[in-house]
Amino acid sequence: MRGAVLHAPGDVRVEERPDPGIEQPTDAVIRLAATCVCGSDLWPYRGIEAVDGPAPMGHEYVGIVEEVGGEVTTVRAGQFVVGSFFASDNTCEICRAGYQTHCVNRQPGAPTGAQAQYARIPLADGTLVATPDLPSDDLVPGLLAASDVLGTGWFAAVAAEAGPGRTVAVVGDGAVGLLGVLAAKQLGAERVIAMSRHEPRQRLAREFGATDVVVERGDEGVARIKDLTGGLGAHSVIEAVGTQESMMQAIRATRPGGHVGYVGVTHDVSLPGEELFFSGVHLHGGPAPVRRFLPELIDLVCTRAIDPGRVFDLELPLEQAAEGYRAMDERRAIKTLLRP
Amino acid sequence: MRGAVLHAPGDVRVEERPDPGIEQPTDAVIRLAATCVCGSDLWPYRGIEAVDGPAPMGHEYVGIVEEVGGEVTTVRAGQFVVGSFFASDNTCEICRAGYQTHCVNRQPGAPTGAQAQYARIPLADGTLVATPDLPSDDLVPGLLAASDVLGTGWFAAVAAEAGPGRTVAVVGDGAVGLLGVLAAKQLGAERVIAMSRHEPRQRLAREFGATDVVVERGDEGVARIKDLTGGLGAHSVIEAVGTQESMMQAIRATRPGGHVGYVGVTHDVSLPGEELFFSGVHLHGGPAPVRRFLPELIDLVCTRAIDPGRVFDLELPLEQAAEGYRAMDERRAIKTLLRP
Repeated sequence: MRGAVLHAPGDVRVEERPDPGIEQPTDAVIRLAATCVCGSDLWPYRGIEAVDGPAPMGHEYVGIVEEVGGEVTTVRAGQFVVGSFFASDNTCEICRAGYQTHCVNRQPGAPTGAQAQYARIPLADGTLVATPDLPSDDLVPGLLAASDVLGTGWFAAVAAEAGPGRTVAVVGDGAVGLLGVLAAKQLGAERVIAMSRHEPRQRLAREFGATDVVVERGDEGVARIKDLTGGLGAHSVIEAVGTQESMMQAIRATRPGGHVGYVGVTHDVSLPGEELFFSGVHLHGGPAPVRRFLPELIDLVCTRAIDPGRVFDLELPLEQAAEGYRAMDERRAIKTLLRP
Repeated sequence: MRGAVLHAPGDVRVEERPDPGIEQPTDAVIRLAATCVCGSDLWPYRGIEAVDGPAPMGHEYVGIVEEVGGEVTTVRAGQFVVGSFFASDNTCEICRAGYQTHCVNRQPGAPTGAQAQYARIPLADGTLVATPDLPSDDLVPGLLAASDVLGTGWFAAVAAEAGPGRTVAVVGDGAVGLLGVLAAKQLGAERVIAMSRHEPRQRLAREFGATDVVVERGDEGVARIKDLTGGLGAHSVIEAVGTQESMMQAIRATRPGGHVGYVGVTHDVSLPGEELFFSGVHLHGGPAPVRRFLPELIDLVCTRAIDPGRVFDLELPLEQAAEGYRAMDERRAIKTLLRP
C-alpha cells in the first residue's frame, strides 16, 4: 500500500509500505476513506520533537472495515467506522470513567500509520464506533474531524465546564481551538470569545458560534478578556496550543473558581505553583478521551446538527501529503484532509 | 491589649499593642475566645518567607462581638462568631460562586492580628458567621478549627471530589491533612488513606476516619497508593503540604481522570507541564474559601457530629505564644490553641 513516512524534519514522503494485516485477534484492518494531518504531527515535522528514523505518520482516520480478528464482535467488515489516536479496551475501570486515552491496555490508535491506504487498528471492539449507515461523501470530513480535533475541542470544552450562563474564552485558533468554539456553543455557553488574529480563522470561529473575537495575546489578551467580563475573567477557558505563553494566558484569563480545559500538547511548559495556587482555577486536560464522545459526535455529524468538517480548508490526494504538511506548517491551511 | 508579634525568624513576642477599634462602618471588633498558630505562620517563623519588620500574627479566630460599625446588620454585640483568614463581602459574583477568598473586595481577615485579646474584622457582614447560641466551652476548639484548618481540609476534600465510592489519599499529616481525612469521611468516601509516619498523627487520622495508613513518601508512597488501588491510583488526593515533593506525590498518586485538591500553600513549586498533561488529573485548590463552608461546619460542630478540635494537642495561654510556635516548629505539637 501507499503511506506517508516522516524521514527527517521537513521530509515527509508517500511511499510503498507493507499492507497491514490482522496481528491480534482483537485487531481490525480498515481501508481509509479519509485521513488528515494533525497539529501534533507538526512537532516532529518541525524538528521540535525528535525524529528517530523513518516513522509512519497519521492517527486520525475514518474508513471501511476490511477484516476483523477472531475476537472482534462489535464491528464487522463493510461498516464505516471512526476511531481515534489511542486504542482502548473501553471496559477497564479507567475507560468506564470516561478516560479511554488512559486505558490500562491502551495502545497507539493506528500503529501502522493512518496517513495511508489501510491501517491496522488494535482493540477494535473498544476503539471503533460504526456509523448507523454508510455516510454520504459530504459527511466524511465531519466524521474525520470527530476522530481527533472535534473530540479534542469537545473534551476541552467539557473540561472547562462550558455551559449555559458561562463565558468561554478560547486560546488557540487552530482546528482544535475552532472546534472548541463549536463545542462551547453546542454545550450552551452564553458567550464564546475566540482569541485569533487571523481573519479567515476569525470568520470560521464566528460561524462556529463565537460571539466575540479578541486579537490581543499574552497579558494584553488577558486584559481584554477581563474587560469583556466585568474585570473577573472568563468562567471557562479552553487552551489549545500547548506553550508556556498560551497556558499562562489561559490560567490568567480565568476567574477564580473558573475552569481551564487544556488540550494543546504541552512542550516545555512549567507552571508556577504559587501563581496557580493563588489563581483559584480548576485545571483539567491532557490527551482527549475522544472515544467517550464519539457516539454523540457521530450522531451530531450524521444528523447535520454540526459541520465540523469545515476546519479542513485544504483537501489533497494522499500522494501530496508533503504539500499538506507544508501548507499547515506555513499556516496557509488550518487543516489538511488527505484522500487515499 | 496583649498581642503576638513576629520580630524576626524564631522571635515571637507577646506585647502591648493598641486596642483595635472600628475604622470602617463595615467593621466589627471581637474579643477573642480562642486563637491558634497556623502551619502557614511557620513559614515566616522559619525564615522561609521574609519577615519585613515586626508583624502582628494570627488569622484564625472565634470570639464575642464587642462592637460593630454603623453599616453592619447581620451580627451584633454579644454574639459568638467565627470568621476566617480573608474578609469578604459575600455578595460579589465571585463570593456567590463560593470563592470568597477571591472576593473582589477581599481584605486580610484580621489585619490587627488574631493572636491577641481583640481583633478588628473588616466586612463583618460578609465575613462573620454567628453560632446559634453561645457555645459551651468544650465546643470552642472545634469552632476555632472551622475558622481555618477544618474549612481548608474540607475545601480540599470537596476540590478532590471525595465522596461515596471514592478512595481518597491524603498527603500531609498536619492539622489540615488530618481534617482532610475527617472531611473525606464525612463526605462519604469509601476508603481514606492517610499518609503519615508519625504514630500519634496516624492514630488521630484513624479516629477521624482513615481506613489505611501509608508511611512511605515520594515515589514509594505513590507505589503504595497504587498497590492499594489495583494499580490505578486514588480517585481523589488531598495535598496539604505545599512542597514540590508533596505536589508531585499527590499528582502521581491520582488515577487518570481523578482529582487533586491542593491546599498546602505552595512554596517554590513548579509543575512540569508535560507530566501534568499526560497524567489526566483534575487539579484544583488554593486558599480555601472557608466562608463557603462555615454555616455547615458550625452546625456539624455544634451538633457534635464532628470533633475537629481534637487537632489541638497543645493549649497555652496567649502569653506563651512563643512556646506554642516552638512546639509546632519542632513537631512536638500538631497545632497550638492559645487562650487570650
